[in-house]
Amino acid sequence: MAPSAITPPHAHGVQQTTELTAEAVAQKIAQTAPGIAKANGLQTTPETTLAPLDASKLVFTRTKTPMTVPEPGDPIIATASQCTDHMVTAVWKAGVGWAAPELRPYGNLSLAPTASCLHYATECFEGMKMYRGWDGKLRLFRPDCNARRMLISSTRISLPGFDPKEVEKLIMALVSVDGEKWLPKSRPGTQLYLRPTMIGSAGALGVSAPKEATFFVIATFMPKLEQPKGLRLLASTDGIRAWPGGFGYAKVGANYGPTLMATRAAAERGYHQILWLLDGQVTEAGASNLFVVWRTKEGKAQVITAPLDDKIILDGVTRRSILQLARERLTDGSSGLEAVEIVERKFSMDEVHEAVKEGRVIEAFAAGTAFFVSPVSCIGYREEDLTIPMTREDSGEYAHLIKTWLMNIMYGKENHEWGVVVEEKQEL
Amino acid sequence: MAPSAITPPHAHGVQQTTELTAEAVAQKIAQTAPGIAKANGLQTTPETTLAPLDASKLVFTRTKTPMTVPEPGDPIIATASQCTDHMVTAVWKAGVGWAAPELRPYGNLSLAPTASCLHYATECFEGMKMYRGWDGKLRLFRPDCNARRMLISSTRISLPGFDPKEVEKLIMALVSVDGEKWLPKSRPGTQLYLRPTMIGSAGALGVSAPKEATFFVIATFMPKLEQPKGLRLLASTDGIRAWPGGFGYAKVGANYGPTLMATRAAAERGYHQILWLLDGQVTEAGASNLFVVWRTKEGKAQVITAPLDDKIILDGVTRRSILQLARERLTDGSSGLEAVEIVERKFSMDEVHEAVKEGRVIEAFAAGTAFFVSPVSCIGYREEDLTIPMTREDSGEYAHLIKTWLMNIMYGKENHEWGVVVEEKQEL
Repeated sequence: MAPSAITPPHAHGVQQTTELTAEAVAQKIAQTAPGIAKANGLQTTPETTLAPLDASKLVFTRTKTPMTVPEPGDPIIATASQCTDHMVTAVWKAGVGWAAPELRPYGNLSLAPTASCLHYATECFEGMKMYRGWDGKLRLFRPDCNARRMLISSTRISLPGFDPKEVEKLIMALVSVDGEKWLPKSRPGTQLYLRPTMIGSAGALGVSAPKEATFFVIATFMPKLEQPKGLRLLASTDGIRAWPGGFGYAKVGANYGPTLMATRAAAERGYHQILWLLDGQVTEAGASNLFVVWRTKEGKAQVITAPLDDKIILDGVTRRSILQLARERLTDGSSGLEAVEIVERKFSMDEVHEAVKEGRVIEAFAAGTAFFVSPVSCIGYREEDLTIPMTREDSGEYAHLIKTWLMNIMYGKENHEWGVVVEEKQEL
Repeated sequence: MAPSAITPPHAHGVQQTTELTAEAVAQKIAQTAPGIAKANGLQTTPETTLAPLDASKLVFTRTKTPMTVPEPGDPIIATASQCTDHMVTAVWKAGVGWAAPELRPYGNLSLAPTASCLHYATECFEGMKMYRGWDGKLRLFRPDCNARRMLISSTRISLPGFDPKEVEKLIMALVSVDGEKWLPKSRPGTQLYLRPTMIGSAGALGVSAPKEATFFVIATFMPKLEQPKGLRLLASTDGIRAWPGGFGYAKVGANYGPTLMATRAAAERGYHQILWLLDGQVTEAGASNLFVVWRTKEGKAQVITAPLDDKIILDGVTRRSILQLARERLTDGSSGLEAVEIVERKFSMDEVHEAVKEGRVIEAFAAGTAFFVSPVSCIGYREEDLTIPMTREDSGEYAHLIKTWLMNIMYGKENHEWGVVVEEKQEL
């Protein structure tokens, strides 16, 4: 987790009694995950005596009514609702802690109409994938990053804490049980989407932190989101996705529902996603991070993306991985492409506009788990469609190379610590 | 609905293609509720051919396992989870419209783990009450306002539209069936909380408008939220509840969950609620609107509250009713209290601070359905507790008078169009 995502209290020079949200978040993390707190310079407090989330207690109940795996091209895949045979669930109660998690047949949740998550958006989630490698092995990509970010999100939305390592183990348990059937070795190079989720499941209409929470992990088929001729983005100057002092950095439901209206309006005008601005500064593209490759006025080639400081931008796992790979492999010319400088700073849509007009934009791409690395071909801005170059048929050169590197790690062509192999059918 | 809450597109002089959210909201309302669109100067479009929400189709299924009504003082009341015997539900599907609504036994909802509302906060609600009058009659308070605001909220969060009149009828159906038992004539002057809710219930993980929605109405017992010695507010200068271009004006889940962390931190310091600021300007108190009664430097007595223009503040039914009553009854001295000017404008916490220091604050109160009219005794601001006068033992004079007027309407002492009598046990 980037330190900026969990800034310690007082870091901005604001007086103690007013830094309510930041301080409460820091305290909670210190209590439930001292390792993360320490790594971020937060004071740790003694661990709670409540029962912690413990993957070693996982109870297995296999389904008696297994479902059929859809063939590639089956229309069910486009619905993003076909899950695998099983799910993992774990219930937390205030004053008690976490009950033993269960791996059980996939099925509906039964919730009181007064459940907190249905009224107050006490919910957070992660997006990640399981990959069937070219070598036949099953892999996750940096699951530790997702598990740690989920703790940041759950804390921000007043849901309980946990040791991220345990969440990682529970995700692996589902993958190891359903992987063989649902992502078979006969289909190397394919993937399934994983959705760890936590909801406030307590039935109580008072506006306060939920007294019960349910964590669950499901695996689904998702349609491909990359656009063959490049993403068409529409810069929004009325709707604002996130604001300093808000919660844009957390993967909470409240960051998504409110964006759907503008996204649909953009789709009706022929764009795929909104490019969210704040005071004219570029923040996120749809539900993914935006990278622009351009040449400065002085002629220096740069890869630029918005920084995490204001806590308005999601600390994307793909974003972080791209930055890291780019710093290692793109800055010295050894990649075969012109060496680029890697820059995290605020940049405005007006700067992008000017660079397009002056022919200084080399390419641009959105990056996220769902979108993966998705080249951008157009940005609509103030009644004008700005054309973003794509030097290859369906991509720019940098996006293509980065995508290749990441896929090699995900599908096992490159042996890398980010590609975590999951043993199949292991019973924890 | 105040026009400001559904500003037509182009109203701010912004170009059409960038006013995505505002335009989409206006379009949707024009399609589903032409009456409201017309009243707000929006263009109406032909009504959709999909099945509209129709209360006359309500199907009744009485419970076979009636519950016991808790006695006053029963600890279950404090849990805000004890509902009445029945609930109303109605399901909408994309391409079909609304199915016939049902009045059925209260019970859990069964939701796919992929349901939109559990991930993307596609949910909105209303808060209102049913009142057992001193004259034995059952009343709602301005249910038309709640039903219309629910349409604004559901539209903002990409849930389906409806004719607010139908929602009003469905709320009345539940009240008329459960009122006699749960709010008995033997307990005049009591109330139950009503929670109309809509959730995106479609199972699909794609980030897009839900293809299925479920509307429901439940009635619950709620603990009294008014504080005997006055509300203690803590002004937050780090957390921001809502921002221009966001969704603060809509009663959507996304406005609530993210506030819980700061509210708990404030509670640990001895305050009841957060006073939310934006750039130093006073916006809302907890989940209610704030009114300050003060004297200007020139000596003029004023009731001041934040305006709705920026769409960051909820258009509260209590707020609106107080403004209207105050304009009718408090501006000419006929009330017995000093005449006051009624002002809706931005005002800053620094202005309040200065007025407190100069002895110009007369009183302050929070107003909302849950809090009703709740006198404020203290505002914590920048390490200092500002004492707000309460001239009566538990209230200021203006709050007391306004509260009396409202209660007289709610409980039938004053015959007023805002107090809508519900016929009991009527079957629609």
